[in-house]
Amino acid sequence: MIEVVRGGIVESRHRVHVAVADEGGALMASCGKPEMEVFYRSAAKPFQALPLVEDGVVERFRLTEEELALCCASHEGEPAHLAGTRSILARCGLDESSLRCGPHPPFSDREARALVRAGEEPRPVHNNCSGKHAGMLALAVAKGWDTEGYHEIDHPVQRRMLAEVSRWTGVPEARVGTAVDGCGVTCFSVPLAAMAASFARFAAAAHRGEAPARIVAAMLRYPFMVGGTGRACTEVMTRTGSRAFVKLGAEGVYGGGLPERGLGFAIKISDGSRRAVELALVRVLFALGALGEDEVDDLGRFARPRLRNTRGEEVGEMRATFALEWA
Amino acid sequence: MIEVVRGGIVESRHRVHVAVADEGGALMASCGKPEMEVFYRSAAKPFQALPLVEDGVVERFRLTEEELALCCASHEGEPAHLAGTRSILARCGLDESSLRCGPHPPFSDREARALVRAGEEPRPVHNNCSGKHAGMLALAVAKGWDTEGYHEIDHPVQRRMLAEVSRWTGVPEARVGTAVDGCGVTCFSVPLAAMAASFARFAAAAHRGEAPARIVAAMLRYPFMVGGTGRACTEVMTRTGSRAFVKLGAEGVYGGGLPERGLGFAIKISDGSRRAVELALVRVLFALGALGEDEVDDLGRFARPRLRNTRGEEVGEMRATFALEWA
Repeated sequence: MIEVVRGGIVESRHRVHVAVADEGGALMASCGKPEMEVFYRSAAKPFQALPLVEDGVVERFRLTEEELALCCASHEGEPAHLAGTRSILARCGLDESSLRCGPHPPFSDREARALVRAGEEPRPVHNNCSGKHAGMLALAVAKGWDTEGYHEIDHPVQRRMLAEVSRWTGVPEARVGTAVDGCGVTCFSVPLAAMAASFARFAAAAHRGEAPARIVAAMLRYPFMVGGTGRACTEVMTRTGSRAFVKLGAEGVYGGGLPERGLGFAIKISDGSRRAVELALVRVLFALGALGEDEVDDLGRFARPRLRNTRGEEVGEMRATFALEWA
Repeated sequence: MIEVVRGGIVESRHRVHVAVADEGGALMASCGKPEMEVFYRSAAKPFQALPLVEDGVVERFRLTEEELALCCASHEGEPAHLAGTRSILARCGLDESSLRCGPHPPFSDREARALVRAGEEPRPVHNNCSGKHAGMLALAVAKGWDTEGYHEIDHPVQRRMLAEVSRWTGVPEARVGTAVDGCGVTCFSVPLAAMAASFARFAAAAHRGEAPARIVAAMLRYPFMVGGTGRACTEVMTRTGSRAFVKLGAEGVYGGGLPERGLGFAIKISDGSRRAVELALVRVLFALGALGEDEVDDLGRFARPRLRNTRGEEVGEMRATFALEWA
């Protein structure tokens, strides 16, 4: 459990599920129900970016390492993220008008306010998934596929994404659950343990210098491009260095891999809570040795979340009471 | 449970706890753990407004019925809410500078954007609890208490609030849990069943024409002042008429009473989810006969919540799988 404590009394509780797997798919450690079906949501982005490396799209359009990191991002809509998205699109002869992600205000409060002050409405480029969408469009252009409808479930782009999820999880395509994600593309569900195994295989392949190495290197060298100011992915990967890469998914999901150890993990908070999954992530990385005590301390609000009220007073805290059980 | 379903697959789950009690404190129906300790948070506001009626503050300062409703509000920060708060303060010789609630942007997106466009920072009057704070200040002035520090736990205003919670729950003051709320005043915790009983007693007293009748009448006549555009409290009370009054609390709480039947209820979502408690509220009111089928249908997104993505597409739904067990 993750407990939310106010004035010493537990006010709310979040149920935590964790699976840790190795490259062979063996469950190394767990908490809760590792067999539960979970959607990756945005935690699938490293897998969704892989075709850009494997199919030569990075070379063909000379995508930079920062742009590759942005293809794996749930970003804050900060200037670097918007510029990167536009640059990816420009490199393959497109512009913002090809993006089919829906608009939402930048996640960054500062950028959201700036947009309002400028009298502008949010556009697809501000969508936290716009980097991924730009990458999908680059894949479509490189492959000679129609860019119109790239987000639809039967488009070759989305079929390829399904194939990647099936390949890395080992779950047959017909048994990977599909639905529509918040940004309009296909999202995928598998058992939590299979999701952990997919990250273990991706991490191990990265360690061997195979195609995932380019993705993992980009994420770890440019963690700002994978999230942005104040995001857990960015703050955590700034501290793990080469020990671990991590990616948030909507509805209380995190996935990640430890390349040097060939391990992967997946976390799901039953109720979909983001505040809980960020604390759970720090605890899991600590338990796996990917973060040391000093690094955990340094993670401040992600490691020791405090409840503050609108007066700025500390009125409570969140605490983790779950532990991994090792197989 | 409240289930969040995407593409036919359950993505997230919220655990629901409900207690329904009568005036005598008997548990009439329940779901989950009616004995669990819960903070009322803003669901305490009808009780916190009662001294304004009982101690003659309403008459002394000629508070209108709309202003009394606003004292029970978690409001959207719309013009009527700001004007009402300022009016209450002016009636007792104060102004915005006496408010000790912390600032936050208006809950209303439209008002929040308008504030940014005007180049203004959020002020305490925009806090969703500013009506309650204005009421507390009116009480302090009427009683001749120092208005400075009215929000602090040992101030006579907050002691009086504790006394009201103890009185209506029947829980001795020493056993009512206290902490600091999001707006800076004291908040209270009791077992869920005791919270339900407090609403039953308040509802029954209202039905007998005692002081709570003024509070309930104000909330039901001016549901907009208790919430605002698009809020569940407002939308639900617009439809229940005299059959029920309801009040949201932070961290997944709802309380309410059925005056004509002398029943009260309290709902807590374990994880603190607002999306879940709003659906649970509609289901509980339907189960108790305070909403008919047509009224439930008419409640649209609160009764049959749909998940939509940023493209506006319907990608899933929420559904309630819990049922009340009658004692």
